[in-house]
Amino acid sequence: MKINDMLAPHNDQIANDQIANDQSRLKQANSDQIQSFDAWIVHMQARMEKVLDANMPSASISPMRLHEAMRYSVLGGGKRVRALLAYGAGEFCGAQLDKIDLPAASVEIIHAFSLVHDDMPCMDDDDLRRGKPSAHKQYGDAMAMLVGDALQSLAFALISQDKLLNNATQKLQMLHILALASGSRGMAGGQAIDLESIGIPLTRAELEHMHIQKTGALIRAAALLGAYSADKPDEDKVKAVDHFAKSIGLAFQVVDDILDAKADTKTLGKTAGKDAYHNKSTYVTILGVSAAQQLVDELHANAMAALSFYGSEADLLRQLANFITQRSF
Amino acid sequence: MKINDMLAPHNDQIANDQIANDQSRLKQANSDQIQSFDAWIVHMQARMEKVLDANMPSASISPMRLHEAMRYSVLGGGKRVRALLAYGAGEFCGAQLDKIDLPAASVEIIHAFSLVHDDMPCMDDDDLRRGKPSAHKQYGDAMAMLVGDALQSLAFALISQDKLLNNATQKLQMLHILALASGSRGMAGGQAIDLESIGIPLTRAELEHMHIQKTGALIRAAALLGAYSADKPDEDKVKAVDHFAKSIGLAFQVVDDILDAKADTKTLGKTAGKDAYHNKSTYVTILGVSAAQQLVDELHANAMAALSFYGSEADLLRQLANFITQRSF
Repeated sequence: MKINDMLAPHNDQIANDQIANDQSRLKQANSDQIQSFDAWIVHMQARMEKVLDANMPSASISPMRLHEAMRYSVLGGGKRVRALLAYGAGEFCGAQLDKIDLPAASVEIIHAFSLVHDDMPCMDDDDLRRGKPSAHKQYGDAMAMLVGDALQSLAFALISQDKLLNNATQKLQMLHILALASGSRGMAGGQAIDLESIGIPLTRAELEHMHIQKTGALIRAAALLGAYSADKPDEDKVKAVDHFAKSIGLAFQVVDDILDAKADTKTLGKTAGKDAYHNKSTYVTILGVSAAQQLVDELHANAMAALSFYGSEADLLRQLANFITQRSF
Repeated sequence: MKINDMLAPHNDQIANDQIANDQSRLKQANSDQIQSFDAWIVHMQARMEKVLDANMPSASISPMRLHEAMRYSVLGGGKRVRALLAYGAGEFCGAQLDKIDLPAASVEIIHAFSLVHDDMPCMDDDDLRRGKPSAHKQYGDAMAMLVGDALQSLAFALISQDKLLNNATQKLQMLHILALASGSRGMAGGQAIDLESIGIPLTRAELEHMHIQKTGALIRAAALLGAYSADKPDEDKVKAVDHFAKSIGLAFQVVDDILDAKADTKTLGKTAGKDAYHNKSTYVTILGVSAAQQLVDELHANAMAALSFYGSEADLLRQLANFITQRSF
C-alpha cells in the first residue's frame, strides 16, 4: 500500500473501520507488550536477587554479624533499577545474560552501600529503608559504617574475580567505570555537594550538576557495564546506551524529587517529604511539580532520541525508560 | 684464609687486633647501611608524598571541600609503612620503581580511608591523627564519611587507570588483591570483629585472627602489589614476599599494642592508651609487655626465615623488618 492510499482512503466507512481495528490491535499489542515487560521486570528482579544472594558472603562465615548486616542491607528489597538497566543495555549490545549478572550485581551493591551510609545519623538520619529499619537502626552506627565500607570492596572484588568475563581488559574497563562513578567526581562527590547545600538554595544548573554526580553517574555506569558485558560491543550502540543513560539517570532523580514531595512513606518504603524537612533544593522546590513533570517528559524524549536509529532491539531500553519515568514508588 | 686459620690464629695479639678491626669495620658497615637505609626511608616517604599529591584530585576542582578533606586525610603525615613495603617487595622482585608508585599509593589511600572512618565518633572516637585533628574534627562527621568512601573508590580507580602498568591481567590481579584485603574477610572484617569484642576478653588465637584481617591483610596486600609491579615476578620470590609480609604484618600490630600501652600521645601522633580506655583485648593485655616483645622477636625471625634463600637482594626487606619491629612511633 502506498503512502497516498493510506492518507486518502477511498471510502470513509472502510477507513474508519480500519482505524478502529488498528487501534484495537495496537491496544492489544501494547497490553501484551506491557504484560511481557512487567513479567520481564519481575523475572529479572528475581534473577538479581538470586545472583546477589549467591555472591554475598554467607552469614555463617566469620565475621558473621558483619556478613549478616551486609546481606540485610543488600537483599530482600529494592527496585533494582540499576540492574535492570544493565540487563537492558547488555541485551541491546548482544551480551549473554549470565555475563551481565556480576557487573549488574556490583552496581546494585555500590548503590546499597551508598544507601546504608546515606541513612546514617550524621548524613540523612533516616530510620526506614526499603520498608525495613535502616542498617544502622538494626545493627548500630559502627557496624553500618563497616557494612558500607565492606560492600564497596565487595563490588570491586566481584568484577575482578568474575569467571564468565574472560577478557581482562573488559573487566578492567568495568572496574574503572565503577570506581569513577562511585568516587569524588561521581556519587560521593554528588553527596558532598548535597551536604554542603543544605539550607542554601541551588540554581537549577547547580542542582543538575549535583544530581548528574549523585545519582546519574552510577545509573550511567550500570548501563555501560551492561553494554561492556558483551564480548565486542558495537561502539555506536555503546554511545547510544551512554546518551540514553545520561538522560534517564537525570529523569530518575527528577521523578524521585516529585515522589518525595507527593507520595507517602508507605508507598516509597522510605521516609517521604524528607527533602523539605532537610530544607534541600529539589526540582520541585525550584520548578514546581508541573514544570518538574514537564522536565521528566523532555528527558524521556531525549532518552528515546538516543535510540532512534535502532528498531525493536532497543524496545527493552525504551520500556525501561517508560518504567523509570512513570514509576510511582 | 681458611676457616681453621680464622678459628685458630697463631698469635693472640694479632688475632685480637684483627677482631677489633673486624668489629670496627662491621660497626662502620652497619652504621653506613643504617644511614643509607634511613636515607632510603626518608627518600621513599618523600617520593610517596609526591605520588599521592600528584594523584589526589586537586582541592580547586569541584567538589572542592570534599577534595580538600581527602587531601587533608591522606597527605602530610604517616610513616608510609605500607608504601615502603610495596617498594621493598617490588625492588626485591625486580620491578621498576615508577611502576610501584600507584599500586603503593593505592594501598596508602585505602589505609588513610580506614583511619578516617575508624576515628569517627561511632567507631574509636579519636580526635587526633598523625598529630593533627582527625578528619571528622576538621570537616564534620558527614564529610569524613564521604572522604572515606571516596578514598576507597579512588584507590581502585588509580590502579585501573595506571598507564605504566600496561598489562591488564597484572592490574586486574592487583585490584583483586586490594579488594579482598579491604573487604569483609580483610580489613573491614577485622574491624567488625574488633567492634564486637569490646569488653569481651579474646583468646590469643581470636586476637591473632582479628589482627590478621584488620591490619595484616592490607600489609600483605601492600607487599604483594609491590611484587606484582614487576613485569614477570619470579613465583618463588612472590611466595617469599607473601610469607615475609604475613609475619611482619602481625609483628606490626603487636608492636602497635606495645606502643599504645607504653608510648605517649605526642610520640605516637594519635591518642595513646586508647585500647585500655576502650577495654579492648591486646597482645599486652593477654601476654604482658615482655611476652608481647618476645612474640615480636619470633615474628621477626619468621619474616627473616622467609628470605633465607636470598642474598643481598633481600636486604631492603630485612631492614624493613627491623624498622617495623624496632619503631618507637
